[in-house]
Amino acid sequence: MKRITLGLAALIHAIAFAQIPPASSLRWSEVAPGVWKATVGQPESLTLLSAAGAMAPRRAALAAMPPAAFPLDQADIEGRQWAAKTAVRFPLAANEDIYGLGVDFTAMRRNGAVFELHVDHWDSRRGIAGRTHAPVPLYVSTRGFAVLFDSARYLRVSVGHGVRLAAREKPPVIDRTTGKGWQAQPRSDSIEVLAGAPGLDVYVFAGPSPLDAVRRYNLFCGGGALPPKWGLGFLTRVPTRSTAGQALADVAEFRRHGIPLDMLGLEPGWMSHAYPCSFEWDQTRFPDPKAFLAEIERQHVRVNLWFNPYLAPQTPLHAELLPYAGTHLVWNGIVPDYTMPAAQKIFVDHLKRTIVDLNPRAVGGFKLDEVDGYDRYLWPDTAVFPSGRDAEQLRQTYGLLVQRAVFEAFHRGDRRTMGQIRGTNAGASPYPFVIYNDNYEFDGYITALGNSGFAGVLWSPEVRGSNSGEDMLRRTQAVCFSPLALYNGWASQQKLWTHAAVKEHIRNAITLRLRLLPYFYNAFAQYHHQGTPVIRPMPLWEGLYAPTADDRAASGRSGPPTGAAAAGQPAVAGKLDATTNPYEIPPAAREVKDQYFFGDSLLVAPIAPNVKSRKVLLPAGRWYDFHTGRFAGENQTIEVTPPLATMPVFVRDGALIPLLAEDRQWAPAAAETVALEVRHYGDAPGRLSLYDDDGETFDYERGGFSWTQLSVEKGANGGWTGAIKPDANGQRWSYGEVKWTFMPAP
Amino acid sequence: MKRITLGLAALIHAIAFAQIPPASSLRWSEVAPGVWKATVGQPESLTLLSAAGAMAPRRAALAAMPPAAFPLDQADIEGRQWAAKTAVRFPLAANEDIYGLGVDFTAMRRNGAVFELHVDHWDSRRGIAGRTHAPVPLYVSTRGFAVLFDSARYLRVSVGHGVRLAAREKPPVIDRTTGKGWQAQPRSDSIEVLAGAPGLDVYVFAGPSPLDAVRRYNLFCGGGALPPKWGLGFLTRVPTRSTAGQALADVAEFRRHGIPLDMLGLEPGWMSHAYPCSFEWDQTRFPDPKAFLAEIERQHVRVNLWFNPYLAPQTPLHAELLPYAGTHLVWNGIVPDYTMPAAQKIFVDHLKRTIVDLNPRAVGGFKLDEVDGYDRYLWPDTAVFPSGRDAEQLRQTYGLLVQRAVFEAFHRGDRRTMGQIRGTNAGASPYPFVIYNDNYEFDGYITALGNSGFAGVLWSPEVRGSNSGEDMLRRTQAVCFSPLALYNGWASQQKLWTHAAVKEHIRNAITLRLRLLPYFYNAFAQYHHQGTPVIRPMPLWEGLYAPTADDRAASGRSGPPTGAAAAGQPAVAGKLDATTNPYEIPPAAREVKDQYFFGDSLLVAPIAPNVKSRKVLLPAGRWYDFHTGRFAGENQTIEVTPPLATMPVFVRDGALIPLLAEDRQWAPAAAETVALEVRHYGDAPGRLSLYDDDGETFDYERGGFSWTQLSVEKGANGGWTGAIKPDANGQRWSYGEVKWTFMPAP
Repeated sequence: MKRITLGLAALIHAIAFAQIPPASSLRWSEVAPGVWKATVGQPESLTLLSAAGAMAPRRAALAAMPPAAFPLDQADIEGRQWAAKTAVRFPLAANEDIYGLGVDFTAMRRNGAVFELHVDHWDSRRGIAGRTHAPVPLYVSTRGFAVLFDSARYLRVSVGHGVRLAAREKPPVIDRTTGKGWQAQPRSDSIEVLAGAPGLDVYVFAGPSPLDAVRRYNLFCGGGALPPKWGLGFLTRVPTRSTAGQALADVAEFRRHGIPLDMLGLEPGWMSHAYPCSFEWDQTRFPDPKAFLAEIERQHVRVNLWFNPYLAPQTPLHAELLPYAGTHLVWNGIVPDYTMPAAQKIFVDHLKRTIVDLNPRAVGGFKLDEVDGYDRYLWPDTAVFPSGRDAEQLRQTYGLLVQRAVFEAFHRGDRRTMGQIRGTNAGASPYPFVIYNDNYEFDGYITALGNSGFAGVLWSPEVRGSNSGEDMLRRTQAVCFSPLALYNGWASQQKLWTHAAVKEHIRNAITLRLRLLPYFYNAFAQYHHQGTPVIRPMPLWEGLYAPTADDRAASGRSGPPTGAAAAGQPAVAGKLDATTNPYEIPPAAREVKDQYFFGDSLLVAPIAPNVKSRKVLLPAGRWYDFHTGRFAGENQTIEVTPPLATMPVFVRDGALIPLLAEDRQWAPAAAETVALEVRHYGDAPGRLSLYDDDGETFDYERGGFSWTQLSVEKGANGGWTGAIKPDANGQRWSYGEVKWTFMPAP
Repeated sequence: MKRITLGLAALIHAIAFAQIPPASSLRWSEVAPGVWKATVGQPESLTLLSAAGAMAPRRAALAAMPPAAFPLDQADIEGRQWAAKTAVRFPLAANEDIYGLGVDFTAMRRNGAVFELHVDHWDSRRGIAGRTHAPVPLYVSTRGFAVLFDSARYLRVSVGHGVRLAAREKPPVIDRTTGKGWQAQPRSDSIEVLAGAPGLDVYVFAGPSPLDAVRRYNLFCGGGALPPKWGLGFLTRVPTRSTAGQALADVAEFRRHGIPLDMLGLEPGWMSHAYPCSFEWDQTRFPDPKAFLAEIERQHVRVNLWFNPYLAPQTPLHAELLPYAGTHLVWNGIVPDYTMPAAQKIFVDHLKRTIVDLNPRAVGGFKLDEVDGYDRYLWPDTAVFPSGRDAEQLRQTYGLLVQRAVFEAFHRGDRRTMGQIRGTNAGASPYPFVIYNDNYEFDGYITALGNSGFAGVLWSPEVRGSNSGEDMLRRTQAVCFSPLALYNGWASQQKLWTHAAVKEHIRNAITLRLRLLPYFYNAFAQYHHQGTPVIRPMPLWEGLYAPTADDRAASGRSGPPTGAAAAGQPAVAGKLDATTNPYEIPPAAREVKDQYFFGDSLLVAPIAPNVKSRKVLLPAGRWYDFHTGRFAGENQTIEVTPPLATMPVFVRDGALIPLLAEDRQWAPAAAETVALEVRHYGDAPGRLSLYDDDGETFDYERGGFSWTQLSVEKGANGGWTGAIKPDANGQRWSYGEVKWTFMPAP
């Protein structure tokens, strides 16, 4: 009887499911070294990668990575297409942790979650899982690979949720009323993604390590962003109604207080009309923009100009772009369809001709506001656009399209830019725009900072005015160890020097930020040339967990310990099996979201305002206090109670940290030669490849850069010695005298 | 130049939009009196109304309503279909307030909102607008009509958001930086809805009043639910592991404490296996179900049996339904595709044969759990089902499908049922299932109760155990004026008599509930036979606002005052124009969500736990305190500070309130004759059509009911006299002696 019933079941399934075809395996082809692509159904012409602008993959850098085989059993990956929906399933192993899938502000690990990836302003009060400024549909597996679902649609994702009837191994069936071990969320063996689209491109990025997989993703997108050196200085934003005179007075105050400043942010008031926008200088507040910009240039500062891309009627740009407008307005302004090349060109031409070219040395970038959400501000989902695309597609890509236009306006003039953006998506790695947010919750900001490392995007917390000096100080210390260090005073009368008790500490934090320019710039160079994210959340630290022999014996595994990979002996990436995972993270480390790595050597543990002490997880290897050079711990969790003056930062054993030798007020210019300090930490010998280029133009795209080899070794007398080996082929090296400091400094 | 540009714009639009057809007017046909239907694209075979089971519209009742013309200019209603998307736009006038669009727990008025209607468990912590137990896509306009979007897809809705480029009148364009009156959300002239479907049916329900429009919707769906009389008694749910003996002991305790009881709810433990479910009695706790049910019947009680519809392996029902299972499991149980008639039949047969028919007088109903959400529990959006339908369609309709099956299991045996459900949708009006929720927030519960009146669904708050007697009392008082009065003790050791200080008050509240059975039952009879919702939120009270002559002069309008409609002089429903709205609600009354009307005459103003006083908005006309009969106010907001013993309830002038003349412990049986008390309130003469039938079977569908006319008039001597005029064609009248009470009682 049972067999008959099951046979009937199969028959009915076979007949009835005829309307929806069965899921089938995908066909994979290697499109770059260690990068495979498969297509389900008929993908749409607009995808995230195509919207981002399809910079050429950095094939040489990909080829220089360890050789890699396809990391999974291809039979375990299935796709299904019906009506206008496309579903893809990847296997999820029991020992696999999943990260990424958008810059979430509350959590890092994604196992067990169900959500919709949807570009939106993150709002912790609503907390719609998946709605964020950067819902990048890239997941990073601790088994050492990453997967991108390249669709410009809202994507519904479930990670280890939804046990399949057809699953080979199912969780135990337990009665909830009396059974032991009943689970509210039985674990499924799959990651499933649904796109409301007739098709979908899927990419797999090999490791061997999770960090390698992220590197491949960033390199495939064209390499990470390389900002100008001045973009790693400090940015202040002035109140929205500031005049040219008031803005220049703010710059003068920075100089008077000795607080470094490289960028001056002007808010909506620089425009004659905003919300919707005119993209023209306001004649009242900025009657002579050229003279204003000339003075800005004399002050060694660049302006960063706010806009949102919704165009006010009665402006020339509106008239030009009206033919490309969608069916709905945003704040009464038209929404140009920038998926159309002609519309992009009009916008880029206008930006370059009427704004950037006024003074290319003084106009440094833009702040691209409100390309993310909320729903109640942007075009409704019923909107359609002249290209034949609809609201959903434009919502998922608008930030990418506008970044691309702004980047192009600068790239054409061979000047780099550094900007801000409120909505982005996959493919954005090469764009030097840093995400921001209006929620202002410190813990969420730090979590987002970590998650940005999984997504090929840049994110920074923010400092605004506060009645609490400690609040402004702790936030300043944190932003100084993030991709963009800024004070946003657009709605505040307070200044960084308002609170006398912390003024010196704030100045010191920003001064240190600028001193560390060589280190930070090197991290960005690695991002650009090698794909390595600037900010690395804990799961991307390859030495996170060095299992002991006992650990390995207990788990019955003989795979290479993670420490080996971290020590520069990468395994060949091969097909994984379900029982071994050399990058498996111990449970206690899977959701450590309040600390992160900046670059190769610094572990940053921000202190929230009003918090006196905190725990810090120090991975395997010996770690040293950045400020004192003293030993801090090794493969352990420590408790720190830092003074107000400093934020906890730790340095790995043997690290070489390059700094500007002297305190400065702004970043070095392209032609300037400056002295370097190299600090060595710990007991191990050190090596560092230090990057340099002109720091202002795209000359690096034409080979105008160098990697200089620095090393420190212990001599026969027991003392440390530093050595420099210039780059034989290097085109640029702007450092003069080099001072070696062996920490702890005597 | 400008004209050329605009001409170019039109040309580019015309060419480029070729992929997406222009929006076009819909073709409307009257499908029932005052009900019109239009179709955009090719609707899917599964819609909300088809899932609900397509009970025949109550055409005679619709025909008895005021004659009505199509209420809008048809040229203002547009549809657009492209790819697998369908969009519909309705006009939104400046003086129009929109209600409905799902049972929201935080707000009533929808203007300015953007959300997605999606069946889910409401979670105030997440507060995803549109995700709720009953995301009924019906909107109710204060201009006196309602609109249903009949699609089994997640619907994206924007109400007055998203100004169109093509709008004839646009909001003023104002510079945010310096302009006055800049608006963050400029008002659009439209309500727009998007379905991810190749087509969509749209229905328009005429008024003349908003309440009339809701009546037409309910009548079109088959009329509102008519529960058995015992279904309006009290329900208690016992702890999940209760045995038969423990459950019967609980019933005995109710009797001993003199607290009325009609229904006993058994939680998952009645089944041999739950989460997933066996649909078989547990042999340990219920070794002899037949004997247990016989004793239940002797106690004048019905059991209400919990289930969720996910079937455990190794049970006969699982084997039968496996051929109809979807691709994914819920709590390891299969999810049958009840859109397939064969699967429905198997389930109905099993429920009837193995459970209901064990004792049809003792098995009264079911609690249908977890047909709503959360996402983390139910099938993922990638699931597909044997009928060829997918996860989204089943998610939007599963509650409807299961209600239909359970209702059918009782209907076949000609016994009515009263049940609970956690997920439902449009078309559910005829089903006697009351929604519940796990959040337990008192204010949200009352808001949901009001919103249920816009949606053709029933909702009740809930009482659970508490360490606070006042908490249990205030909640009990509120549930006693809701569609289902219940105590949910499934996870508590506390009882209604645990707190001695409030025990009597609790008993009195439940006793009053049962005394009011004739009044409540009459409200349900009006729901069934006339479509009038049992619970009426403030905007559905036709006498909400009686404008004074000054008001009318100020607004320059000459339309009929609402008071006229409320006084039984309905206007003929005709096409509206943009400048008049006889049902416009004054701003202060648009979001009064903490009070509601139950039936024709009672205004209920619940008191939250730990609240000592509250405001109550008394509409036009004189209002009287229910408990004392004293005048309370008229067209004004009053402040009340009720004692613990009572909850504020007000009665309209001239109302006749029918009650059982004596306190009882359970509802009257079908063959029982009981004495009636009729209370008259206020200074106006009173009239009441009082319904009756057998209260237990579907005999009313075969004409077995009566409407008896009660009236009270003032005699020549100044005293009040009551009169009864029997229904000449009436088949049932179970009331014996009638006692008249003229309030305030002497």
